[in-house]
Amino acid sequence: MKSLEEKTLKTKKIFTGKVISLQVDEVELPNGKTSQREIVKHPGAVAVIPVTADNKIVMVEQYRKALERTIIEIPAGKLEAGEKPEICAARELEEETGYECASMDWLISFYTSPGFADEIIHIYKATGLVKKDNPAAADEDEFVNLMEVSLEEAAQLITEQKIYDAKTAYAVQYLQLQEKLGK
Amino acid sequence: MKSLEEKTLKTKKIFTGKVISLQVDEVELPNGKTSQREIVKHPGAVAVIPVTADNKIVMVEQYRKALERTIIEIPAGKLEAGEKPEICAARELEEETGYECASMDWLISFYTSPGFADEIIHIYKATGLVKKDNPAAADEDEFVNLMEVSLEEAAQLITEQKIYDAKTAYAVQYLQLQEKLGK
Repeated sequence: MKSLEEKTLKTKKIFTGKVISLQVDEVELPNGKTSQREIVKHPGAVAVIPVTADNKIVMVEQYRKALERTIIEIPAGKLEAGEKPEICAARELEEETGYECASMDWLISFYTSPGFADEIIHIYKATGLVKKDNPAAADEDEFVNLMEVSLEEAAQLITEQKIYDAKTAYAVQYLQLQEKLGK
Repeated sequence: MKSLEEKTLKTKKIFTGKVISLQVDEVELPNGKTSQREIVKHPGAVAVIPVTADNKIVMVEQYRKALERTIIEIPAGKLEAGEKPEICAARELEEETGYECASMDWLISFYTSPGFADEIIHIYKATGLVKKDNPAAADEDEFVNLMEVSLEEAAQLITEQKIYDAKTAYAVQYLQLQEKLGK
């Protein structure tokens, strides 16, 4: 197998924001030539698929400025500095849905778009859900509507392209496959 | 349902590169307050799950600078200006694997990371694969190694977290579910 590694020759920082930062790396390619790589740095995130006692998935409708529309997602949010993913998962679940859970189990992690970003999302499954009397408030710039659907309805929403968000589709399909494969 | 829309008050362009651009929008939130949204603009991309006559999936190993490592993916690439996704899919398949195909069928599309990026990926399934004698060369800054695995092996690589790329996992799980559901 040929080595595909690209060596960093120079890194130019372009932008540092509250969620992402951007840099352009000058790299040496495997053939010795040079090229530029535009790279978005992200702190990483969690997504939670909350499953109620009657086997419904709790989803949120959230406005996504990047898409200029409201989309259907599972609860999610970015990791704060030094925050453990399972702590972040419980926090986001409470803030976005008002639920706390008895079990928060890691399912799988994935990279959303390795061509230009280092964002990783850790997917958790939350069960044993109980509505909190005084749940922690959402971030002050975050507004959501709640909805509950069965796993079959969620899968149908994916097929109909009414759910088209990577983390949500990943979590739903992963659970669906576990069910089909009898795990 | 409360309206969740965020109105754009101001857009500040930060960066325009060869793959992505970056802007920061000042928005009016549903409660009348203002906030900032960091938004990566991407031209959109295609991913192709190529299935051979003996039911193997052709994958590529590619170095991803954002992750500083080589990862396993299905062939993919960004849309050129004005390019139709199915044309792009055939081009990327040929450039990265040397195959042309009899059928290129759209499966599904998804957004990789709607929290900060507008990137959409259109997933196609390529069948009727034939190696071309003189395939178009890959982009001059693109280097890949090829591998072929069965759908079951691909699913296993996902479970073992050896495949952890959104588009690849999405395509494999989607095909796997179609198979399980007898579609």
